[in-house]
Amino acid sequence: MSIRFELLATDGAARRGRLYTTHGIVDTPVFMPVGTQATVKGLTPQQVRDAGAQIILGNTYHLTLRPGEDVVAELGGLHRFMAWDGPILTDSGGFQIYSLAPTRKIDDHAAVFRSHIDGALVELTPERAIAIQENLGSDIAMCLDECPPHDTPPDYLRVAVERTIRWAERCRAAHKRGDQALFAIVQGGTDLELRAHCARELTALDCPGYALGGFSVGETETQMLAALAPTTALLPANKPRYLMGVGTPRDLLASVRAGIDMFDCVLPTRNGRNASAFTDEGEVRIRNACHKRDPRPLESDCPCEVCRHFSRAYLHHLFLAKEMLGPTLLSLHNVAFYCRLMAGLRQAVEERRLDDFTADRLARWRPSP
Amino acid sequence: MSIRFELLATDGAARRGRLYTTHGIVDTPVFMPVGTQATVKGLTPQQVRDAGAQIILGNTYHLTLRPGEDVVAELGGLHRFMAWDGPILTDSGGFQIYSLAPTRKIDDHAAVFRSHIDGALVELTPERAIAIQENLGSDIAMCLDECPPHDTPPDYLRVAVERTIRWAERCRAAHKRGDQALFAIVQGGTDLELRAHCARELTALDCPGYALGGFSVGETETQMLAALAPTTALLPANKPRYLMGVGTPRDLLASVRAGIDMFDCVLPTRNGRNASAFTDEGEVRIRNACHKRDPRPLESDCPCEVCRHFSRAYLHHLFLAKEMLGPTLLSLHNVAFYCRLMAGLRQAVEERRLDDFTADRLARWRPSP
Repeated sequence: MSIRFELLATDGAARRGRLYTTHGIVDTPVFMPVGTQATVKGLTPQQVRDAGAQIILGNTYHLTLRPGEDVVAELGGLHRFMAWDGPILTDSGGFQIYSLAPTRKIDDHAAVFRSHIDGALVELTPERAIAIQENLGSDIAMCLDECPPHDTPPDYLRVAVERTIRWAERCRAAHKRGDQALFAIVQGGTDLELRAHCARELTALDCPGYALGGFSVGETETQMLAALAPTTALLPANKPRYLMGVGTPRDLLASVRAGIDMFDCVLPTRNGRNASAFTDEGEVRIRNACHKRDPRPLESDCPCEVCRHFSRAYLHHLFLAKEMLGPTLLSLHNVAFYCRLMAGLRQAVEERRLDDFTADRLARWRPSP
Repeated sequence: MSIRFELLATDGAARRGRLYTTHGIVDTPVFMPVGTQATVKGLTPQQVRDAGAQIILGNTYHLTLRPGEDVVAELGGLHRFMAWDGPILTDSGGFQIYSLAPTRKIDDHAAVFRSHIDGALVELTPERAIAIQENLGSDIAMCLDECPPHDTPPDYLRVAVERTIRWAERCRAAHKRGDQALFAIVQGGTDLELRAHCARELTALDCPGYALGGFSVGETETQMLAALAPTTALLPANKPRYLMGVGTPRDLLASVRAGIDMFDCVLPTRNGRNASAFTDEGEVRIRNACHKRDPRPLESDCPCEVCRHFSRAYLHHLFLAKEMLGPTLLSLHNVAFYCRLMAGLRQAVEERRLDDFTADRLARWRPSP
């Protein structure tokens, strides 16, 4: 088996599990830092590990454009290329069908993009998405899907779901690599009937894991959460469930309660580069003048390297002085924050006190100023 | 004593020594990475240590402008502020008298700058340069000096030297901090008589260490090297000698042979940020297309974190993809390269085979393409 999932405990719909991959064990629920271009931005693999990350994400679309999956394969695969020896999940390029919509065309055969680097045409078929990911050698590959925006008319949403199902079948048929698990992606927006149809069809494929795509594409948080629990309920309990591209700490709390096991999001690193830190008391905007002489760490009880060594005053100084180390250190803290939040969630599920844990966290997080 | 210098071995004029400071021991000859704004650009203190650095440099002019030495002092001093617990040397702002010449005025009382940040006037007297450095709490402080450019007319060069001597006397009188050593700076350009005069006057002050300033200010390498050995010969043998702002690996070889013990230079980090790596075979420009599929590390026998984990192909990819990790990793390797070169020089002096070591290195370094 390319992957094995063990369900250790539940608390309501929430699950505490363990995922056995070719490159090691992952405790779920888990957050995967995003390493789009074969690097979690600003951090060395050692720093990513030290922050508590167990598995990271790479992006098929970006890596096929640069450096090219042939280069990565020639250099020993993505793990060796970026010197990350833990598990890696690669997306399929399906999200770029959404995010690069103005410059791509899609039909049943393929999605065709204009490269954001040099404008060249890039054709992504289900078979090609699989071939790229097999070349990258990730532990978990994703089926190519069509991810439509939130405001898609119902007729087109149905087209996208049917295409996603057929593409999953083609991905499954094309996928040969025995040390790599292939997950299918349930689409359907916030239309629960469509989600149910898609989940049923994909469950029949007996994939080793399932993802929920088409969230974080313009819908409100309420709309997302309303669709989440009913959709996870349609998925096999003995397989991991991955909510793609989500989200804020609030989203993670709510989604774990809805039965999600895996997450990825650029927020910790993107916000870190933009001088915004996640803490148990809410967002800290480190450029703000109030931090100029503050000797406290970002969080007094955070065991990360940043909080053990550096004051808010120092981090404030780094950003004002436009020093590279500022974005690096805030990204490091934020990734550590996300990983620590997930560890707290895992323990809460084990101890069946997720309600209390969630209420306590929400009460402490002040809204952003 | 604020500092103690032990001479362990010599090979010709070259010296192998040990410097005992408030924050630890430094093996000389030593290279000090530059941490202008309380950070060695792009690197965590742990990475700087792991690269082999024993002592780093901070810049008085930059730190007084931002965050202000009062802020640094309030936060426990520069060591604690930037979480570097090893020795720190601070310059005095004298180099900015050279580098910011178009926007500053100088007379016997003070140098007055226009801040490069907000245009505000900043007055630097010898007494103020000392007060700032005492507030920063460096292990080694430098006297304020006037560093004129290479093409200075002889008459003005003499004025600058006399001012440098008087300012050193005022610095010495103002300096009170017992856990901090104050070094004086010998100026005089490439005029050996002036250098000798300056060295004599400053030696009379019995400082715990001496620097050579006014090099790397536009003169040729040949001119610098011609002035170096005669000037070091004028300095007391039992005190450390620091060549400010120098230089390339070739410069370091020649300067150690001329009897220099300490160096600082921005080259390893600046070149690293600009995709240029130092190696025993010469410069590697990692953006060059020849590295695209090269599985080798920057240097096969380099024990640094970068060479242990990453291929040239990966580093090439990071720079082409404009990833922050590229500048970080090349800076890290370059600092490690400089520190390793100094370790080699120390061993060569101990074993009295500096000639062979130097010839071997020069033979291996290919000129930059």
